[in-house]
Amino acid sequence: MTLFEEKTIATEKIFEGKVIDLQVDTVKLPNGHESKRELVKHPGAVAVIAVTDEDKLVLVKQFRKPLEKTILEIPAGKIDPGEEPIKTAARELREETGYTAEGLSLVTSFYTSPGFADEIIYLYEATGLIKGDAQPDDDEFVEIEEVDLNVAATYMADQTIHDAKTAYAVMYLQLKQARNQS
Amino acid sequence: MTLFEEKTIATEKIFEGKVIDLQVDTVKLPNGHESKRELVKHPGAVAVIAVTDEDKLVLVKQFRKPLEKTILEIPAGKIDPGEEPIKTAARELREETGYTAEGLSLVTSFYTSPGFADEIIYLYEATGLIKGDAQPDDDEFVEIEEVDLNVAATYMADQTIHDAKTAYAVMYLQLKQARNQS
Repeated sequence: MTLFEEKTIATEKIFEGKVIDLQVDTVKLPNGHESKRELVKHPGAVAVIAVTDEDKLVLVKQFRKPLEKTILEIPAGKIDPGEEPIKTAARELREETGYTAEGLSLVTSFYTSPGFADEIIYLYEATGLIKGDAQPDDDEFVEIEEVDLNVAATYMADQTIHDAKTAYAVMYLQLKQARNQS
Repeated sequence: MTLFEEKTIATEKIFEGKVIDLQVDTVKLPNGHESKRELVKHPGAVAVIAVTDEDKLVLVKQFRKPLEKTILEIPAGKIDPGEEPIKTAARELREETGYTAEGLSLVTSFYTSPGFADEIIYLYEATGLIKGDAQPDDDEFVEIEEVDLNVAATYMADQTIHDAKTAYAVMYLQLKQARNQS
């Protein structure tokens, strides 16, 4: 679909960073008017739904500077240049939690902030988890918490879980459970 | 929770835009090392789950410049300075779809991209929809599509619906339906 397409007239590069780039595009709207679009470029990320043999969802506690607080999320990380998303998923799961997975299957992908950023998250489900030691990057500080699905639901309610991808993961597992019971 | 807090040593403002600002913070990590954090500041947004009397979910088709394509999303928009989120929800619903709602209740809120942005979305559920004329901004181009929940599910599968907040909305309705049936 390219309904209401906005044609790019000019691109001004504002910033090139380690994680994101920023540019401002001048666009021609469907009515002929010109407007500006502020666009964040992101390499894309993966996130992993990992449920242990004891039916616990693996979460990582991490300080998030943009929020100035620590939140509880499913394991996730950004895709390195040229890296296949499934490799990123295996790598981030191992680095952050110590788990390796016998299988990783793609559940879905979604854009997180289509109004201003092109970030896409590929969401994987891990099966056959084998516990090892976490290997966080030198400058990465995470703590693992493994929770029952009903505890995850209370964390959704009290916003200990407070980000879109982790909320997606919990609802995905709740739907799976509801369908298995029906 | 402020586990693993990163203390700000310096803030460099890179860009102030109409929608987002960008800054780079120098932070002191828990191990004493210094690092940089690229931070996008966003005013926050709302999104609205609106289901008509005919049990159809109201979606809007919109070109998203960061993605260079048109996607189908629940009505949404950013919060104006000083605006209460529930007012934004009523305003965006009316402007984009023409519907006014007798009731708007907060379902949840979530951060969309906690790794690099502080954007939070407040998700509302509308009840008692009354149809009027859409009043998009001069430079806003949207087309409304109202779909059954099972059609929304196929749109999730084929990625016509491809953003986090809309996926959340569809799963929320699916869970509600599953719980009503059990």
